[in-house]
Amino acid sequence: MDESAKKLEDQVRLAVYQARELQEAASSLIAKFSIEEQSIRQRVSSLDSTLHRLRSSIDSHLRQKLLHPQLSSKLEEELQRARCTMVDGDTSSFFPSRPQGRFLKMLIGPVNVRATRKDLQLKFKEEYNNYRDKTALLFLVFPAILLILRSWMWKGCMPNFPVQLYQAWLLFLYTGLALRENILQVNGSDICSWWIHHHYCAMVMTLVSLTWEIKGEPNCVKKQRCVQLFLQWAMMQGVAMLLQNRYQRQRLYTRIALGKAKRMDVVWGETAGVAGQLLLLCPILFILQGCEAYVGISLLRTAFTMEISEWQVIFFGVLLVFMAVGNFVYTVKTLLIKSRFKAKMKRAKSKAEMD
Amino acid sequence: MDESAKKLEDQVRLAVYQARELQEAASSLIAKFSIEEQSIRQRVSSLDSTLHRLRSSIDSHLRQKLLHPQLSSKLEEELQRARCTMVDGDTSSFFPSRPQGRFLKMLIGPVNVRATRKDLQLKFKEEYNNYRDKTALLFLVFPAILLILRSWMWKGCMPNFPVQLYQAWLLFLYTGLALRENILQVNGSDICSWWIHHHYCAMVMTLVSLTWEIKGEPNCVKKQRCVQLFLQWAMMQGVAMLLQNRYQRQRLYTRIALGKAKRMDVVWGETAGVAGQLLLLCPILFILQGCEAYVGISLLRTAFTMEISEWQVIFFGVLLVFMAVGNFVYTVKTLLIKSRFKAKMKRAKSKAEMD
Repeated sequence: MDESAKKLEDQVRLAVYQARELQEAASSLIAKFSIEEQSIRQRVSSLDSTLHRLRSSIDSHLRQKLLHPQLSSKLEEELQRARCTMVDGDTSSFFPSRPQGRFLKMLIGPVNVRATRKDLQLKFKEEYNNYRDKTALLFLVFPAILLILRSWMWKGCMPNFPVQLYQAWLLFLYTGLALRENILQVNGSDICSWWIHHHYCAMVMTLVSLTWEIKGEPNCVKKQRCVQLFLQWAMMQGVAMLLQNRYQRQRLYTRIALGKAKRMDVVWGETAGVAGQLLLLCPILFILQGCEAYVGISLLRTAFTMEISEWQVIFFGVLLVFMAVGNFVYTVKTLLIKSRFKAKMKRAKSKAEMD
Repeated sequence: MDESAKKLEDQVRLAVYQARELQEAASSLIAKFSIEEQSIRQRVSSLDSTLHRLRSSIDSHLRQKLLHPQLSSKLEEELQRARCTMVDGDTSSFFPSRPQGRFLKMLIGPVNVRATRKDLQLKFKEEYNNYRDKTALLFLVFPAILLILRSWMWKGCMPNFPVQLYQAWLLFLYTGLALRENILQVNGSDICSWWIHHHYCAMVMTLVSLTWEIKGEPNCVKKQRCVQLFLQWAMMQGVAMLLQNRYQRQRLYTRIALGKAKRMDVVWGETAGVAGQLLLLCPILFILQGCEAYVGISLLRTAFTMEISEWQVIFFGVLLVFMAVGNFVYTVKTLLIKSRFKAKMKRAKSKAEMD
């Protein structure tokens, strides 16, 4: 008994020793990494401010005619490329992280959702794009099925359940999109916060729509005209989303190839870029926003003329008009920034040729 | 012009060079860390299996009477402490991470939510506890206000809007809890997956409750008896949650002090531990589960006797009964495991004293 027990005791003692040793190794590795990380962080932020300073001094030199326009654009290009090296490469994880938005904090708490490695960030970005693609398809198919069944089976009067299922799905979808976009933002994406707020509005809207009794009342068909409008608008949005996704991806790939974009850029559709496709995309976006406003206004009209006492109808109307106006303003803003940038580039080019 | 331009050009060139250098430094730091990380990971997993092997060989030695019971319990304690060193310290982040659940994947995508450092994990755990505390208070206050207003202002017939606001808040709350618990699980917490599934059920229930018209119909007061029951049950749950939170925290702090628990353990209330408080907690939990089942059954009864055609009532009834049965089964299971463990400890002790 004694010998075997002794052997076991020794083994246990060794394991305990190893555990302590391993713990120390882990602690020292983490400490070492965080010291080196700190130093790289400092170098990154100082270089980042140097790049900013250089860019503004190029601008001021150009204004004071101390710099040849051709040389200036060459230098600017080099600065841009240097910034891309930092932002697209492994250095990106050493930039100071953006504070987590309130939405993320409320739903998932103070978790670090920042990817340490660039390839993980890109994987997440790719997954976000795939999610949007799938979403857009369902955006097309789901309301289409409802509308087809409405005219074929339900004789113009949809039952509550399938519509509510659709609304619950929408709520789930918008929550997923808002969460992902917040995470992308923490990971350094330049996504405009209006589009995230747009998704918060959409979440509130679907939540409210769940409380809305769409059947019953004296005239079901008449009452459901608004629902029908809403579904048709959702289908159009599906088409627009598919086009946007294709456009955004192509544009990003082109820009990555040119070394001009951070790959974490997500622009929720309504921005401009490749001229040829924009001719197709822009009218669709504006028509969509028009439809959004139209649906909103017609909801408000029915609320006041048909004297429907439900607060949801009025709420929907106001929210849809608000979203349409916001979308329009931000799309125009983006287009203006783009065109101003283009004009500036043109001016610089023609000046360079003149000189 | 030339001199100043030349100086600027040099500065730009230097910045570009620094960017490239920094990029290389960052890459090499990440690569170096991941190599050392890999080696610690391997050592952790091999030591972990050694600890498992040693524990089972202590058991078999004890069974074959090759080991003194006193020595055996001493060795077991040492092994336990070694495991705690690994699980509670910095080594914990080098354990293989648990796969992300489907819920997390669907809502936030393939983001890494695992904290690399133990202090971050503990901060998250602490925040989760605070969130639950706040939640429990609101769980008490919100339905209480509704019930008070119901009898004082609304004469027994609640309007839709405040109840729907309450339901939307519940949906938000349960989503937050389910997300946080999933993240805790990824971070190595031992939370029983039934309690997470319980929150999924609660999410579905509140979603369905939003589609439920609680006013109108011929007899509003009669119809709202179910809503009233539900709110009273929610208030009781608030009390139980507050007690559970206090109990869990005390228990965890005691166990951490004894070096016997991983601090990431979250047991959603319904488990056992400190005997004195359990005498208070256990009956409350069982009464709560009884109430849950009672509310479910009375919903089903009203659905069949009063011939309410709404599918939501039947759905609620079935879901509440299911949740009550599940809660009961898992609470009893946990208690059984606890008592079996205690009995084993007692037997080992008395054997040691006999010898």
